[in-house]
Amino acid sequence: MKEFELIGRLLAPIARASAARGLKDDVAVWPCPAGRDLVLTKDMMAEGVHFRSADPPETIAAKLLRVNLSDLAAKGAKPEGVLLGLGLTGRQDETWLQAFVQGLAADLDRFNTQLWGGDTISGVGRLTLSLTAIGTVASGRALSRAGAKVGDGVYVTGTIGDAWLGLEVLEGRLDVGEAIRSHVVAAYQLPEPRTDLGPALAGLAHASADISDGLLADAGHIAEASDVAIQLEGMAIPLSLAGEAWAGADISRRMHLATAGDDYEIVFTAPLEQHEAVLALYQRFGVRVTLVGRVVAGRGLTVLDQHGATFEVTRRGYEHGGAG
Amino acid sequence: MKEFELIGRLLAPIARASAARGLKDDVAVWPCPAGRDLVLTKDMMAEGVHFRSADPPETIAAKLLRVNLSDLAAKGAKPEGVLLGLGLTGRQDETWLQAFVQGLAADLDRFNTQLWGGDTISGVGRLTLSLTAIGTVASGRALSRAGAKVGDGVYVTGTIGDAWLGLEVLEGRLDVGEAIRSHVVAAYQLPEPRTDLGPALAGLAHASADISDGLLADAGHIAEASDVAIQLEGMAIPLSLAGEAWAGADISRRMHLATAGDDYEIVFTAPLEQHEAVLALYQRFGVRVTLVGRVVAGRGLTVLDQHGATFEVTRRGYEHGGAG
Repeated sequence: MKEFELIGRLLAPIARASAARGLKDDVAVWPCPAGRDLVLTKDMMAEGVHFRSADPPETIAAKLLRVNLSDLAAKGAKPEGVLLGLGLTGRQDETWLQAFVQGLAADLDRFNTQLWGGDTISGVGRLTLSLTAIGTVASGRALSRAGAKVGDGVYVTGTIGDAWLGLEVLEGRLDVGEAIRSHVVAAYQLPEPRTDLGPALAGLAHASADISDGLLADAGHIAEASDVAIQLEGMAIPLSLAGEAWAGADISRRMHLATAGDDYEIVFTAPLEQHEAVLALYQRFGVRVTLVGRVVAGRGLTVLDQHGATFEVTRRGYEHGGAG
Repeated sequence: MKEFELIGRLLAPIARASAARGLKDDVAVWPCPAGRDLVLTKDMMAEGVHFRSADPPETIAAKLLRVNLSDLAAKGAKPEGVLLGLGLTGRQDETWLQAFVQGLAADLDRFNTQLWGGDTISGVGRLTLSLTAIGTVASGRALSRAGAKVGDGVYVTGTIGDAWLGLEVLEGRLDVGEAIRSHVVAAYQLPEPRTDLGPALAGLAHASADISDGLLADAGHIAEASDVAIQLEGMAIPLSLAGEAWAGADISRRMHLATAGDDYEIVFTAPLEQHEAVLALYQRFGVRVTLVGRVVAGRGLTVLDQHGATFEVTRRGYEHGGAG
């Protein structure tokens, strides 16, 4: 009982949008903007599966929001509001809940998104979180996994594999220097959804997806949905200094990072005639965009090694969960 | 891994709306209808808290949908689409998942609602479900808890307390005849959201809420949000034959049913000049609508017993969880 009152009291001040009705009405009510399509996504996260019990509550809240905003960004959508689902175990005390709400509030502000409502329950076995994010895009302009065309370049934002390195560090399985540690731990706990860059892809990219299951898996999803083949240059996949230090020229290690997932970068295809416009995204948004491969006729995904030979990929990505 | 493929394969055929993008795109995309407001709600349910482990998977799915549709109905909204969140434990086998999807599919058809997307995770401690329902209502016409006016009548749809009796029967704490048993068990496992009647309340009711926490609690929420007092006639609260058999003229027992919750009926206020129009809802929708009290000046909720004396209510409702 007490935790419901507490969470209500903590959340009410951050639910400032009129759509939220002060969190007092079981529902959110929001006027549909004319000429826009709604883009909706819902991701769940469970303790011990998608985050560590020891993670700071602020970053658990932030990650929950960010993984959903990443889905919207990859479709070119602007976030509008979210509904929060909290499945508490009874072990979250007032200090924990305060920190969680604080982390959520800071990120809602940062990403210019409103808390519209949600639900809190108690008595689940493990902390289980759910968030629904609602965004909008100009009518008919939402990107999808389908649409990649033969001759397109395949691009990826940011760098790949840092979240996995961060998890390895946090779990004590990998020892690195302090500068690398803070970078990779942040990649795991506080991924950067490409909310600014994403909307600029509408009208430029042919197909787009965020990278949650791993670059190879998500590029493979694009190939499948678009009924084309994708050929990636293994050595072109962008790694951070931390990733380079760990993988070096070892293509197996590089591919391991490309299948690890939890990146929340965007993989997209765009016509190579637009290559200059794609690279210009770096100047506009300060986010590195790297050409990593090509769309070709056929089906499936292949990875070429440094000699141009096909690299055998045994594991395409960590399966975080499917749609539905 | 296998359960993600399985659930994807089971859900794909029922996600027929183009908004769902075949569940292959991480997001749903839906054109905002002109002149409508969106109404959004999200309820979570956990095994052992909101449903019993032994409940049939079909009814667990149906109840998850229905408790959300009930929120939309109470605001006068028409359901459009839902996002499903499944937190599996690993103990749900193919037979269980098939039955769950079958129950969901049947109810989506029945309530003319589309599956737009969602997320499945595994590894939670207890089966934890989440659903986001999106509805629409004519611009500015969504009902709310606020808006009750002094002089309004307070009405309730259907009968109160049957779900609690059903739970008592299922848990073996109450022994009843077979006819009553099937009625009250159905009330617990398959509540009837007032999706047809609800939209007819827009323009008629001043304030409205669905009854999830108990009639007294939810009427109290209306009083609080509307800054008025509500006076209920304890003996006027409508009970089913099962409820009458259990409570009889014992006002304490009647009040117990009015605080039990899980009813998913609607409590609303409307001007008494509209009393005929309110009662006519019965003819139109075949749902009993009963005058149970009045809105008066002041604050809070009081219940009058059969002698017109104030009945002391010690427990206003079971707290299912707060907004947020």
